[in-house]
Amino acid sequence: MQVDIEKNPQEQDVRSQWVLNAPEPPSPCRVVADSLRKTISHFQQKFSSLTDQPCTTLLLSLLQLIFPIFSWGRNYTATKFRKDLLAGLTIASLCIPQSIGYATLAHLDPQYGLYTSVVPPLIYAVMGTSREIAIGPVAVVSLLLSSMVQKLIDPAADPVGYTKLILLATLLAGIFQASFGLFRLGFLVDFLSHAAIVGFVAGAAIVIGLQQLKGLLGITHFTTKTDIVSVIKAVWEAVHNPWNPRNLILGCSFLVFILTTKFLGKRKKKLFWLASIAPLVSVILSTLIVFLTRADKNGVKIVKHVKGGLNPSSIHQLDFNNPYIGEVAKIALVVAVVALTESIAVGRSFASIKGYQLDGNKEMMSIGFTNIIGSFTSCYVATGSFSRTAVNYAAGCETLVSNIVMGITVLISLQFLTKLLYYTPTAILASVILSALPGLIDVSEAYKIWKVDKIDFLACIGAFFGVLFASVEIGLLVAVVISFSKIILISIRPGTETLGKLPGTDLFCDVYQYPMAVKIPGVMIIRVKSALLCFANASFVRERIIKWVTEEESEDDKGNSRSTIQLVILDTSNLVNIDTSGIASLEELHKSLSSRGKQLAIANPRWQVIHKLKVSNFVGKIGGRVFLTVQEAIACKTRC
Amino acid sequence: MQVDIEKNPQEQDVRSQWVLNAPEPPSPCRVVADSLRKTISHFQQKFSSLTDQPCTTLLLSLLQLIFPIFSWGRNYTATKFRKDLLAGLTIASLCIPQSIGYATLAHLDPQYGLYTSVVPPLIYAVMGTSREIAIGPVAVVSLLLSSMVQKLIDPAADPVGYTKLILLATLLAGIFQASFGLFRLGFLVDFLSHAAIVGFVAGAAIVIGLQQLKGLLGITHFTTKTDIVSVIKAVWEAVHNPWNPRNLILGCSFLVFILTTKFLGKRKKKLFWLASIAPLVSVILSTLIVFLTRADKNGVKIVKHVKGGLNPSSIHQLDFNNPYIGEVAKIALVVAVVALTESIAVGRSFASIKGYQLDGNKEMMSIGFTNIIGSFTSCYVATGSFSRTAVNYAAGCETLVSNIVMGITVLISLQFLTKLLYYTPTAILASVILSALPGLIDVSEAYKIWKVDKIDFLACIGAFFGVLFASVEIGLLVAVVISFSKIILISIRPGTETLGKLPGTDLFCDVYQYPMAVKIPGVMIIRVKSALLCFANASFVRERIIKWVTEEESEDDKGNSRSTIQLVILDTSNLVNIDTSGIASLEELHKSLSSRGKQLAIANPRWQVIHKLKVSNFVGKIGGRVFLTVQEAIACKTRC
Repeated sequence: MQVDIEKNPQEQDVRSQWVLNAPEPPSPCRVVADSLRKTISHFQQKFSSLTDQPCTTLLLSLLQLIFPIFSWGRNYTATKFRKDLLAGLTIASLCIPQSIGYATLAHLDPQYGLYTSVVPPLIYAVMGTSREIAIGPVAVVSLLLSSMVQKLIDPAADPVGYTKLILLATLLAGIFQASFGLFRLGFLVDFLSHAAIVGFVAGAAIVIGLQQLKGLLGITHFTTKTDIVSVIKAVWEAVHNPWNPRNLILGCSFLVFILTTKFLGKRKKKLFWLASIAPLVSVILSTLIVFLTRADKNGVKIVKHVKGGLNPSSIHQLDFNNPYIGEVAKIALVVAVVALTESIAVGRSFASIKGYQLDGNKEMMSIGFTNIIGSFTSCYVATGSFSRTAVNYAAGCETLVSNIVMGITVLISLQFLTKLLYYTPTAILASVILSALPGLIDVSEAYKIWKVDKIDFLACIGAFFGVLFASVEIGLLVAVVISFSKIILISIRPGTETLGKLPGTDLFCDVYQYPMAVKIPGVMIIRVKSALLCFANASFVRERIIKWVTEEESEDDKGNSRSTIQLVILDTSNLVNIDTSGIASLEELHKSLSSRGKQLAIANPRWQVIHKLKVSNFVGKIGGRVFLTVQEAIACKTRC
Repeated sequence: MQVDIEKNPQEQDVRSQWVLNAPEPPSPCRVVADSLRKTISHFQQKFSSLTDQPCTTLLLSLLQLIFPIFSWGRNYTATKFRKDLLAGLTIASLCIPQSIGYATLAHLDPQYGLYTSVVPPLIYAVMGTSREIAIGPVAVVSLLLSSMVQKLIDPAADPVGYTKLILLATLLAGIFQASFGLFRLGFLVDFLSHAAIVGFVAGAAIVIGLQQLKGLLGITHFTTKTDIVSVIKAVWEAVHNPWNPRNLILGCSFLVFILTTKFLGKRKKKLFWLASIAPLVSVILSTLIVFLTRADKNGVKIVKHVKGGLNPSSIHQLDFNNPYIGEVAKIALVVAVVALTESIAVGRSFASIKGYQLDGNKEMMSIGFTNIIGSFTSCYVATGSFSRTAVNYAAGCETLVSNIVMGITVLISLQFLTKLLYYTPTAILASVILSALPGLIDVSEAYKIWKVDKIDFLACIGAFFGVLFASVEIGLLVAVVISFSKIILISIRPGTETLGKLPGTDLFCDVYQYPMAVKIPGVMIIRVKSALLCFANASFVRERIIKWVTEEESEDDKGNSRSTIQLVILDTSNLVNIDTSGIASLEELHKSLSSRGKQLAIANPRWQVIHKLKVSNFVGKIGGRVFLTVQEAIACKTRC
């Protein structure tokens, strides 16, 4: 190739003309307009393909669009139902004790946890696009909701007002989630990076575990703060007052039982159902023990009255004139994003195992509607649960019918079995929650993050310690800030690299990445490690380049062989865009190099870049030294 | 080349090995450590080169480092002094009326403007590295300072308290500026993009112009708000009450005179001194007229008493126990950044004309110390002025000695001539300020920004209308937010492009930028227009690629010639870095493509990217399909 070019300078000129005479790139306005037109025509196509059909088909298509169950339900078979039934019953047995426990974590009456395991799974089953997600109350959201709402109203002092706020937050979270889906704001869920989620969930798991010490030790007065220091202080004080070890003994023995079955279930895949029903078995057994020994008279704390019956309507409790409405909206926004992040992460990971795509926007709308309708029927924020979805998948679920089975099972329990929960010791609920926590602390993933990306790991431990030592919101904030700081930092302080020629090719690469690359004497080839040359980094890049050129010349000075750089080539193959500050900076660079008798050339400018350099007449100022490749820029120097 | 590769697959394997066996890139910790070591060794070198020398030389070197005047002063000649004397007298004649006017704009007594034109130029002259900057009070900073501080204390009600706050803000601004320089935080100045400054300064000029209507119309009661709506309302009300047209007539006639001389000065370069002394001539003439006709008895507003004498000490006025200290610190931070931005922009533009480099960090320290010492001697925030620096340059200044000449001239005026200012009409001061404003509204630059970059223009008019209709701070905030939104937006929603082969080369380029590029059948080559594949864009990119592959196959479906894509090549030559979310997303992409029988290959990964892909074992998962170039990735497909 090199030989070719030197033989055919005309050919090279042709290629320079390709660069310079590229068609004009679309303006930002046209990009926006095109994208709008595309979306509209997409809907029009869908609509026109519908209107061609008779009325009933039209209705069916619309229904299928909104409720995917009408689409997959038509191929539903008895074989599938058998599998779903089994999976549904399995997750129901796990769900009942967990729901009660999470309701306690959210400072709500136990029945609210059960309510949240009835309506949301039924709604999601007809609207959702995932096939494995098990919907219901989850630990992290329960913690987040209670830790933020109790700052507004103390649940111990005014439980009714507190419950009202929780329901209002649920409605608003649902509205936020549905609108994210409607306005295709799926990227909001991406604001929490994978690393941040790993750290955040691990921190939240420890905080949740610490909260369970209240139940496990049978403490009556406990701190409302969630950070590790306050909780340990509260436990320390409680332990130094007279306390009853019966709660601890009962809780710990069943915790050991559940963890043992879990361990067995992991070792032998066939025993996994044992792990799934162990929590329910523990509840039943411990309730029986307390009932028979009347241990509640001896200081064992029990759940007492759980209100039975169907989900009552809660529409009258949703009060938009609430003085805290602004605060609640903020809380709802945070909860909405966290809940969606958890659910979509879970859904995606199982969808990719089964090899289908999850529509993020549709998912957000489904979960949003689930929570809106949930808030009308005494449910608090529901989302896809990590642990129960994994059990659902392992139990062999085929479709969302397993969620329907679970919902109906919980409904039956609510109607007929709540009286039996009277003697359930609270320590057991703590054990059930504690047993679910180890799965949330993913040390091996954290190690992998550390190995691959140190700054990602910083976001991870930032979130972890933020949750642990400050509060749940602070942990989230720390993670988001660290993640975005990285993006901004790379933009305002980009690296620069010098390129050398790879032997036997026409390629120019970073001399540090490819030690075999050879620098061209008299020429300095520089590439900026950023997609943007803009106001935030333009002066920095300019100063860096001038410093390098100066250093290069003085460095060779020592060895007494002064290498004078005649040509500085800026390889802009990275640069996606440039702004007016960037162009001004290039102009100053050109002036500065010219005053020292050096030339500046641009190699491989991208579409937006060459367009702007042409419009601002920079190409004319550097004498048209714009080339398709670095090789051709060097060839020109030899020719000139 | 293509032929070469197909003949020599071994050679290609060697190159793939180059990619895969690149040395490990430095970790972020090592990068930070290296940069620290470099800085320290830089200082050590400087220090050791100093300590080798005798004590007197050492002292001189240190002095030269802190006070560059000791360095350039040794080559100072009588010829240079003659030029500097002329330039200094010219800017002094412009500076006296402007200083009084800007002090009025800052709601301070007139003498404070003169004080600020004495000490700061003298300090800057011994510390600064620019050769042209004329230091003193400037319009934008005066407006910014007064509009923010008057929200804390009303200058009409408590002028002493207000002045104290202004002096405190000056001290703090100086401390901020000096620390920016000390800690090398020069990038803070880059946060205001060129486009934002153009819009902001133009908006501020109009706001300042509107404020001058008070003086020009001789209005006594005027609004304290700076937005255009409030000011026009205030003027409307004032005009509808009985008012005296004498102020307006006097002001306008001298405004016409100054603008005419300015116009002449622009047409004939030799007449520029006429433009420079016109303001002073106007002040003298109008004062004489008022004195002779005793027009002040007939409603012409006059300056009255201006306190004469040297700058008094103001150390006792700096009260750190002030209840507003927190607010003042915030104001000082904003003012510090804006003042530095103006000064460094001015300094840089003239330095690049004369072909020398301005050291940003040293400049920040000089201006910081200037303001710190200024605050001890009754000066408010001084910085490099656009208009006076241009006059200084045009008058042929050689060094900062012109600033010393100016300072001494103003000092003499303060000592002996302030009594003469008693009868100066305020309308003339308004005219002097108004005549300086047209230079700040740079319509042609705004048009150029519009032509080159639409989003930059958005930041420009955002700042303009923000200043005009809301407040000075809001305008700044709008500009910074728009500028940074663009960086973040490009990161979270990067474009993607398909590549085709340029005829006669081995190069693969965007098929839209180069319409002659030919797509390779059965292969899809995709490049992401971002420097980072990270949490914020990874899912978006993955979904986009899968959608494109699906579309490409279905699009050809219509034409009945189904083209099945067998290989998707991701050209990662853009990507500077990737994080764990990005890798997870690539893994999902690989799974998704595999399930459809397609292969994924990576071409030209950069240093950090290939390192992380190796560490996370992604290279193994895609069967080692990592290549140096797109061409080689395609060649492999033909071989396989």
